[in-house]
Amino acid sequence: MNFSSKILEEAVDQVSQLPGIGKRTALRLVLHLMRQPEHNTDALSDALLKMRHDLNFCKKCHNVSDVEICEICASHNRDQSIVCVVEDIRDVMAIENTSQYRGLYHVLGGKISPMDGIGPQDLKVRSLVDRVKNDGVTEIIFALSPTIEGDTTNFYIFKQLDGLEVNTSTIARGIAVGDELEFADEVTLGRSILHRVPYENSLKN
Amino acid sequence: MNFSSKILEEAVDQVSQLPGIGKRTALRLVLHLMRQPEHNTDALSDALLKMRHDLNFCKKCHNVSDVEICEICASHNRDQSIVCVVEDIRDVMAIENTSQYRGLYHVLGGKISPMDGIGPQDLKVRSLVDRVKNDGVTEIIFALSPTIEGDTTNFYIFKQLDGLEVNTSTIARGIAVGDELEFADEVTLGRSILHRVPYENSLKN
Repeated sequence: MNFSSKILEEAVDQVSQLPGIGKRTALRLVLHLMRQPEHNTDALSDALLKMRHDLNFCKKCHNVSDVEICEICASHNRDQSIVCVVEDIRDVMAIENTSQYRGLYHVLGGKISPMDGIGPQDLKVRSLVDRVKNDGVTEIIFALSPTIEGDTTNFYIFKQLDGLEVNTSTIARGIAVGDELEFADEVTLGRSILHRVPYENSLKN
Repeated sequence: MNFSSKILEEAVDQVSQLPGIGKRTALRLVLHLMRQPEHNTDALSDALLKMRHDLNFCKKCHNVSDVEICEICASHNRDQSIVCVVEDIRDVMAIENTSQYRGLYHVLGGKISPMDGIGPQDLKVRSLVDRVKNDGVTEIIFALSPTIEGDTTNFYIFKQLDGLEVNTSTIARGIAVGDELEFADEVTLGRSILHRVPYENSLKN
């Protein structure tokens, strides 16, 4: 693209470095900001800087939080003995939205992925083991994506927990509610039969 | 969405106000910035602020420019007597990319659109008329989108130019190069027959 202004080009370059945003979309967004009042751009810029510099993470579960120990970890209404291990904060939000879980979380910050150069040392695994040792955690629920990386990470953590008094489980894999059976992939369908639940249990929700 | 941090929520809110970006995409972009080094967010924020506050427009054609008169208007290699009227700077970039046009531009900054509250007074029409009067412009090419708003704007400008010594033309409407005839809409196909060009002319490019 030939820009008639270096300032415009720099803005488009910066915006197009965001994932999933190409040069054309970046230009569209920048032109939008150009047409809006100046304080809109100021507010956007402020919010991004504040997010990047002032955002804190819960000392316990590593979820984003404005205070040292996040609301969930500090809550007396949550079961402190169960910890659900997730990849990032979006998973916490997704599970919280279900209102079905009353335990705590542990945000790993990613999955073991040699292709992306992410090893166990880049994830919050050690602090999870410490929580099991020191905080009276009796059950760990693995809720990572069912990919090779997710399974590898689960297994790595499982090995690290070896010898500790803690139960481990994974979230159920199966046919999504509302899905047609015939369109399910065979691995998922196979697991859903292998891990079938008593009919009475399925009536509870 | 339930955010565990007000700072994060504010950042996502701000990003999701950009056109075509919903809350989920905004969260994805913000989390991406969170994982990148701090100076990436600083650079993005700086570039946006600079774009919004320091960007200048060419005094003549209203294209974005870092100097008072843009490169195109100041060039001695361009035909100063032809002015192509476009909606915004993206159209200038698109036409420049074709390398087929050696005249000047005039960026209106939009189209007349009562639905969006944009009237003639919001567009750079007066300065276009002034250019025709004072700068020896002999031809105006309308290159607005072929919508009702575009046609209305063309006609409004055409009326404003009434009595001035200037030729007006519009860019050719027709079947796009490489398109299948059978899939063309009837208006376009109709116009392409009505405004057919001598076969020899079509060989020139």
